[in-house]
Amino acid sequence: MEYKLLNTINRSEDVADLNMEQLPQLCDEVRHFLIDNVSKTGGHLSANLGTVEAITAMHYNFVTPLNQFVFDVGHQCYTHKIYTGRRDDFTGLRKYKGLSGFPSPNESIHDAFISGHGSTSISVAIGLATAKKLKGEPGKVIAMVGDGAFTGGMIYEGLNNVDVRLDNLIVILNDNKMSISKNVGQMSKYLSRLRTNEEYIKTKKNVEGILDKMPYIGKPISNTISYSKTALRRTLYKSTFFEDMGFLYHKVDDGNDIYQMCNAMKYAKQAEGPVFIHMITVKGKGFTPAEENPGAFHGVGSFNADTVTDPDVAPSDSFSTVFGRELSDKANTNRKLCALTAAMKYGTGLQYFYKEHRRRFFDVGMAEEHAVTFASAMAKNGMMPVVCLYSTFMQRAMDQYIHDTCLLNLNVMFAIDRSGLVPGDGETHQGIHDLSIFSNYDHVPIVCPSNYSELRFWQNYLVDNVNGPKVIRYPRGGQDSYIADYECTGNYYDLIGETKENIIVCYGRQFVEALKAQKTLAEQGIDTAILKLNVVNPLLPEMVEMLLEYKNIYSFEEHVKNGSVSAKLGLALLDNGFANNYKYKCVDNYTVYHANVGELQKICKIDAESIVNKIKENYEN
Amino acid sequence: MEYKLLNTINRSEDVADLNMEQLPQLCDEVRHFLIDNVSKTGGHLSANLGTVEAITAMHYNFVTPLNQFVFDVGHQCYTHKIYTGRRDDFTGLRKYKGLSGFPSPNESIHDAFISGHGSTSISVAIGLATAKKLKGEPGKVIAMVGDGAFTGGMIYEGLNNVDVRLDNLIVILNDNKMSISKNVGQMSKYLSRLRTNEEYIKTKKNVEGILDKMPYIGKPISNTISYSKTALRRTLYKSTFFEDMGFLYHKVDDGNDIYQMCNAMKYAKQAEGPVFIHMITVKGKGFTPAEENPGAFHGVGSFNADTVTDPDVAPSDSFSTVFGRELSDKANTNRKLCALTAAMKYGTGLQYFYKEHRRRFFDVGMAEEHAVTFASAMAKNGMMPVVCLYSTFMQRAMDQYIHDTCLLNLNVMFAIDRSGLVPGDGETHQGIHDLSIFSNYDHVPIVCPSNYSELRFWQNYLVDNVNGPKVIRYPRGGQDSYIADYECTGNYYDLIGETKENIIVCYGRQFVEALKAQKTLAEQGIDTAILKLNVVNPLLPEMVEMLLEYKNIYSFEEHVKNGSVSAKLGLALLDNGFANNYKYKCVDNYTVYHANVGELQKICKIDAESIVNKIKENYEN
Repeated sequence: MEYKLLNTINRSEDVADLNMEQLPQLCDEVRHFLIDNVSKTGGHLSANLGTVEAITAMHYNFVTPLNQFVFDVGHQCYTHKIYTGRRDDFTGLRKYKGLSGFPSPNESIHDAFISGHGSTSISVAIGLATAKKLKGEPGKVIAMVGDGAFTGGMIYEGLNNVDVRLDNLIVILNDNKMSISKNVGQMSKYLSRLRTNEEYIKTKKNVEGILDKMPYIGKPISNTISYSKTALRRTLYKSTFFEDMGFLYHKVDDGNDIYQMCNAMKYAKQAEGPVFIHMITVKGKGFTPAEENPGAFHGVGSFNADTVTDPDVAPSDSFSTVFGRELSDKANTNRKLCALTAAMKYGTGLQYFYKEHRRRFFDVGMAEEHAVTFASAMAKNGMMPVVCLYSTFMQRAMDQYIHDTCLLNLNVMFAIDRSGLVPGDGETHQGIHDLSIFSNYDHVPIVCPSNYSELRFWQNYLVDNVNGPKVIRYPRGGQDSYIADYECTGNYYDLIGETKENIIVCYGRQFVEALKAQKTLAEQGIDTAILKLNVVNPLLPEMVEMLLEYKNIYSFEEHVKNGSVSAKLGLALLDNGFANNYKYKCVDNYTVYHANVGELQKICKIDAESIVNKIKENYEN
Repeated sequence: MEYKLLNTINRSEDVADLNMEQLPQLCDEVRHFLIDNVSKTGGHLSANLGTVEAITAMHYNFVTPLNQFVFDVGHQCYTHKIYTGRRDDFTGLRKYKGLSGFPSPNESIHDAFISGHGSTSISVAIGLATAKKLKGEPGKVIAMVGDGAFTGGMIYEGLNNVDVRLDNLIVILNDNKMSISKNVGQMSKYLSRLRTNEEYIKTKKNVEGILDKMPYIGKPISNTISYSKTALRRTLYKSTFFEDMGFLYHKVDDGNDIYQMCNAMKYAKQAEGPVFIHMITVKGKGFTPAEENPGAFHGVGSFNADTVTDPDVAPSDSFSTVFGRELSDKANTNRKLCALTAAMKYGTGLQYFYKEHRRRFFDVGMAEEHAVTFASAMAKNGMMPVVCLYSTFMQRAMDQYIHDTCLLNLNVMFAIDRSGLVPGDGETHQGIHDLSIFSNYDHVPIVCPSNYSELRFWQNYLVDNVNGPKVIRYPRGGQDSYIADYECTGNYYDLIGETKENIIVCYGRQFVEALKAQKTLAEQGIDTAILKLNVVNPLLPEMVEMLLEYKNIYSFEEHVKNGSVSAKLGLALLDNGFANNYKYKCVDNYTVYHANVGELQKICKIDAESIVNKIKENYEN
């Protein structure tokens, strides 16, 4: 396709300068551009196809950066990036040094704020809008929120704090009837009622008119009617939850109709007070496979746009699916096992558990805090819940882990997916902070399997043998073929190699890098042992004692230093009077941008080559 | 007062066995008992006076532990404790080894779950109720939530996840028009409308009747009316937010009327589906000073019930008030300064800022997550927000600190009140986890002043000199007179003492213990220096280098080990080849129960005496 119009759009103003009649064509070109590019690079597709018209209408009516756009979760911002001078960068989408898949103020002044985690947008928008007001600056702040984000508590904290004087605030609810997978909960049902009750809003005026015209039929009835009229008016005046929250509510029946969206934006421009636009869109709009199965095209690798298959039907093996299948099997015999996820049924491999044990499966929406407290209470009454979250989202529930799980030492298992370095998504999604809180309790076992057989062994071990909080962490994606056959020992740690000269301490995926480094070093005549930790918390005293005999100890880790295993080990060595050489490398980058895992390991200097170089340093001096 | 009836109540069943006519007297006796006891021991008064009738009605209709009660935040549970065999323990309320001021399953089987942090109750109740359902166990689960907790996002996550089949779930909204101080936000306004619109609910039936009786006046109008009737019915059918969330909604106009409350409980007992009881109560009910100023009697020390003064009018000096006054002064010249609190305006000393700079003051309710993200966005647009939270509640916003503040390196100051050991409240309120996340970034300065002059100096220093995230931490209460005159040096660290034999590393309040230990040791002929850290993150390389010369280094700290300053220092020493003796003591108690600070320091073995003993150990061997 030729991008006749799109090729002329290099900044927000270029959209605003078009005639309204040109906008449908522009949207059409953007949609083709998105399918064409994302099919080559991978990325988030469905969400971006659904918001083309909305973002076009936003730029048509509100140029950036004078106005500021906030995208909840953030992966629906592609059209915005296209309109703000980054069209040509889409070939490098989500690649190292290429375009981020999320809004990034470091990338462009047109990205008003960072996002990646859900339900933050209203808080962000209020903050930006309030600062504008305090400084007397012009321009509106527009937050675009998916209905999925309405399952997260922060959205309500934001809504609850909307100042009715914030007339520079616009919230757009992008209601596509699902977040990442199908939406859950009461708010979802409520939105669905708002959606389907087309009369709900429209009749307001009619009813008011009727009330005025209602005849008086005798005194008693008349009084009742008069009394009721007041109550009715009050009821009708504030008829949606969003109006109750202080917004001017405006519904757009077809958010994929550019004219309807432009009208809504025009309305919002002139409104005196915060505006809430409720638009109904189709996720994956314009690309049939994505419309039919938006979940499958939520975040995708590159694909052939003509011959797509549904990745959910036959998911390839990954730590997530292996974990999920094993847990479902275990639940056949262990009737106390429950599985919880926060809007990531497929992401955490729980679709198997869901199919087999529906009553014991709970998807709470994007509500990690609730998930952990809910699980803790179930454990208190004798069930054994397994909370399956991504490491980066577990950050949301650290207070609940401390306050609701650990203070009562409750029998909750935390299955932490996407722990360590995470490819593609970038700085907002790295799983490099969770140990900082998980390890605050010495008695909570934290297990880090490095391949599927270890994963299966340890997840069952924790279920069968540990009564109390317990954690199992594993990375995104599949096991490395390099260690696929490494046999699970079931020990807290494995020692590989005889030498007492050098030893590399590692766990999880880093075992691969350690093995490769060991091999390279051996070829160069340097003997190196490997200490592979299977349980990283607590560290066994006998293991620490054994390490004291080594001359050079090295640790390389996919976690920030504070709270890391390297830090814990260092302290244990010091406690035991270790006087030899201990060197460690954690993730100390200020932010870890998007790249693939291999690149990230290099960037963080924890890949095999970096390990080799570090150990060789000692021989060069 | 003689407690004629109350003295016969030793368990839940004893309440249930009374005649309903006896209940008003029982409530009267409980109220006197509360005032009498709390005036002697201190504790939470207003909230407990407001819930006497509700809790009485709960026990009258639902005996425990067959039924389970969950108290949001938890400090309104005294009447429940009185009815469940703990009446005589009230003399030891909140004292070491005495009765906890919060629900505590470790204390009694009648306390179904732990609480202390806000907005968790619905999640807990759903968890308990779901487990009951899965196991086929009888009994209801009742969550009592204050309207203040409705400013916290977790409540919505809970509401959103209510399964309409949970007919064993009852939620009681204790609407006293304020949480700890006056309530904020749109939900508060909404509740106020529900409260005042008495007709709102009552007219529902009337209106339905009228609609049925509405005459047909010609065809066109008839159609409109018929059409509107449907819409109206739909509107009216689900007329409150709580009904929208799937609950059977029931309003109690006077929650301090025992008969009304018993009726509500009877209704809830028979209802098929989750029930939402919205009761209006008076906080401080029955004790005039508390009714007139419930905030002042929220949590109190012991007082003379006859001659009470309002502590808010003339608050004694504390770290909180000194901080608050200084910040307000600073804001006179620094027009970018904003102050934020999460429902703790008085607790964090921000009443002064509020009075002087109302436009730049924000109380967001019990919504720590929102507070941090909101502040970050304000910073992004050029303001300089100061987020004032208690350490234990900051745990709620650790994801937002990482994701919204630190990834963009935004200019947000965190003023962390009640850091370290916290007296009275017990395990749920200890400020011993925040460094575990705060220190994840080496470049974020964390300052710990030990007296008021240091507090003033450093809070201004951070405002004037640090552009980016920054943290200042201080304990609950006032400065210790022992170091009130210690002069602020403005250095990152102070060295006190000449010897290179022993050195005690400390910061903040622990400086007192270090000084006392130094003195005692000197009297016994043991020379000890003190390294007083003013900035605990980052640790200056030159400071670490200086420490290498010492023979014995000791650190004693009010924080868990993981993420502690002691851990950080130990690692830095190891990095620099320190081969001498380093010993540290952090809080490694599984839970730190309620006691006063001196007792807590002893329990955690970080008081002066423990320091002396630890250092002397080295001389005894």
